[in-house]
Amino acid sequence: MDVEQTFLFIIEVVGTVAFAISGIRMAAAKHFDWFGAYVVGLVTAIGGGTVRDLLLNIPVFWMQTWWYIAVTGLSLIVVIVFRRILVKTRVLFLFDTIGLALFVVIGIQKTLAVDYPFWVAVIMGITTGALGGVLRDILVNNEPLLFQKDIYATACLAGGLVYWVAYYCGLSMPAQGIACAVTVIAMRLLAVRYSWSLPVLVDIDENTGNKV
Amino acid sequence: MDVEQTFLFIIEVVGTVAFAISGIRMAAAKHFDWFGAYVVGLVTAIGGGTVRDLLLNIPVFWMQTWWYIAVTGLSLIVVIVFRRILVKTRVLFLFDTIGLALFVVIGIQKTLAVDYPFWVAVIMGITTGALGGVLRDILVNNEPLLFQKDIYATACLAGGLVYWVAYYCGLSMPAQGIACAVTVIAMRLLAVRYSWSLPVLVDIDENTGNKV
Amino acid sequence: MDVEQTFLFIIEVVGTVAFAISGIRMAAAKHFDWFGAYVVGLVTAIGGGTVRDLLLNIPVFWMQTWWYIAVTGLSLIVVIVFRRILVKTRVLFLFDTIGLALFVVIGIQKTLAVDYPFWVAVIMGITTGALGGVLRDILVNNEPLLFQKDIYATACLAGGLVYWVAYYCGLSMPAQGIACAVTVIAMRLLAVRYSWSLPVLVDIDENTGNKV
Repeated sequence: MDVEQTFLFIIEVVGTVAFAISGIRMAAAKHFDWFGAYVVGLVTAIGGGTVRDLLLNIPVFWMQTWWYIAVTGLSLIVVIVFRRILVKTRVLFLFDTIGLALFVVIGIQKTLAVDYPFWVAVIMGITTGALGGVLRDILVNNEPLLFQKDIYATACLAGGLVYWVAYYCGLSMPAQGIACAVTVIAMRLLAVRYSWSLPVLVDIDENTGNKV
Repeated sequence: MDVEQTFLFIIEVVGTVAFAISGIRMAAAKHFDWFGAYVVGLVTAIGGGTVRDLLLNIPVFWMQTWWYIAVTGLSLIVVIVFRRILVKTRVLFLFDTIGLALFVVIGIQKTLAVDYPFWVAVIMGITTGALGGVLRDILVNNEPLLFQKDIYATACLAGGLVYWVAYYCGLSMPAQGIACAVTVIAMRLLAVRYSWSLPVLVDIDENTGNKV
Repeated sequence: MDVEQTFLFIIEVVGTVAFAISGIRMAAAKHFDWFGAYVVGLVTAIGGGTVRDLLLNIPVFWMQTWWYIAVTGLSLIVVIVFRRILVKTRVLFLFDTIGLALFVVIGIQKTLAVDYPFWVAVIMGITTGALGGVLRDILVNNEPLLFQKDIYATACLAGGLVYWVAYYCGLSMPAQGIACAVTVIAMRLLAVRYSWSLPVLVDIDENTGNKV
């Protein structure tokens, strides 16, 4: 592996650990046992990419190498041993954001590689980045956080659109990816810093006609 | 496109809008943000057909044309702008029923086209028509409505069986589809008109031996 | 069919009935109608194997023969007619355990047949055995039991590891399968007899620093 590949590999490990830990901690809050927590962590980390690969009809990525399984096991150990430190640090949020950005880029590149149009690639980028968290919330029987208070998926969408613009402007492929990743990271950090959120949808009660 | 294709295209748009709106309104009742509501609407509209295509191992239908994505966006705008009118009208129910009938026919025809037996086609017809609503209910963390009070899936089943009979009676393919669609629509309208429902399953409490 | 195939066929029917009944009874506890209960029973019985086949990109097993559909229908009738007897007997637990053991073996063998490494086969064995129950819990909107109090999935994991050992020791394929199945059954029976469970994961409250 050359330097660039090593760099991408490290980011992917970091992102996978961050995603897995978010699943494991949510499982812990629901008093799941170790095995259940491992499964929730694994689904959070690999769920989005798995659905992407099924939809694209390409071999499922985590079945090609054992290290996603191993890295999730490492994440479980980290939570068990270091949980008192974990809650006091913001480093997990940074890891999660960097991992998210890389996952969006990977989703887009894999989709373009099998010749789907760009709008499909953007959807697959969002799916890779955000669906794992939705599956996590379904497994622990929470309402998906994604849909209520987080700019998470919107940051993926913005990153995908910037990738698209960079693509049509004729930037090199690494430059496209970096532009996308920087957008995702910037939007997420700014959204948390300034409490950005999308408007909540309002519906009308069928009986009273009042907003609910 | 000739007249028949145009007609089927219009019905599919109408059905997709009706399905998407049902998802978006349920997301609104749970105070999801716009993006979340869009996702729930999209999953409601395309979820059943997506699972069908994965099971049949054929290309996923909504990844071949951008208009499902666009029509769901249109549905979101309709809900935001016209929500006060929407709650006072029965037109959505009619759209939903017509869309359901068409989705069942499409599910059956796609399955027969890849040479599965008819009982698989009937299951895929029900899946195409009814699974989107189940996924919607899972996403907003409700118990699936389908399983509790609606004749929805049963209407799909009846339509599928009528299609089967028409097929073995040697009717033309359009006639098979129309017989199926009319059955679905008639059963759904009659079920709502006369409050038809299936019997609820009763279980016995393990401790007291009483029905629960 | 020779004697061995007949034997395996009977076990698979027995296991499918046991899995379907567990889904149907949980649906009954939530007052689902007959159709809903049938669907939950079917998903419990075939859900794990379906996801396995999609991940392995092989034809989905229950679409190749109608008897899984029929056996689930039989299970619904059994629940409706014999529910008063069912709650007083332990026979269902035995059926469920035997079925689980066979499903794990089938999952492993199908995965090895398409040349995936053994660690993928173990995951697919667990998926085949345990995912149906998770999908059942999601459909009826419960928190997955699997993750909280049951040694269920751990028994599948142990069976898979024993299979692996038997494989590398050069045992014959039937001997590998039997070693795996006996392990799953023994672990499940012992776990229930002696109330084995995995440790629950503990998390720290972000505000107070107390364990939650």
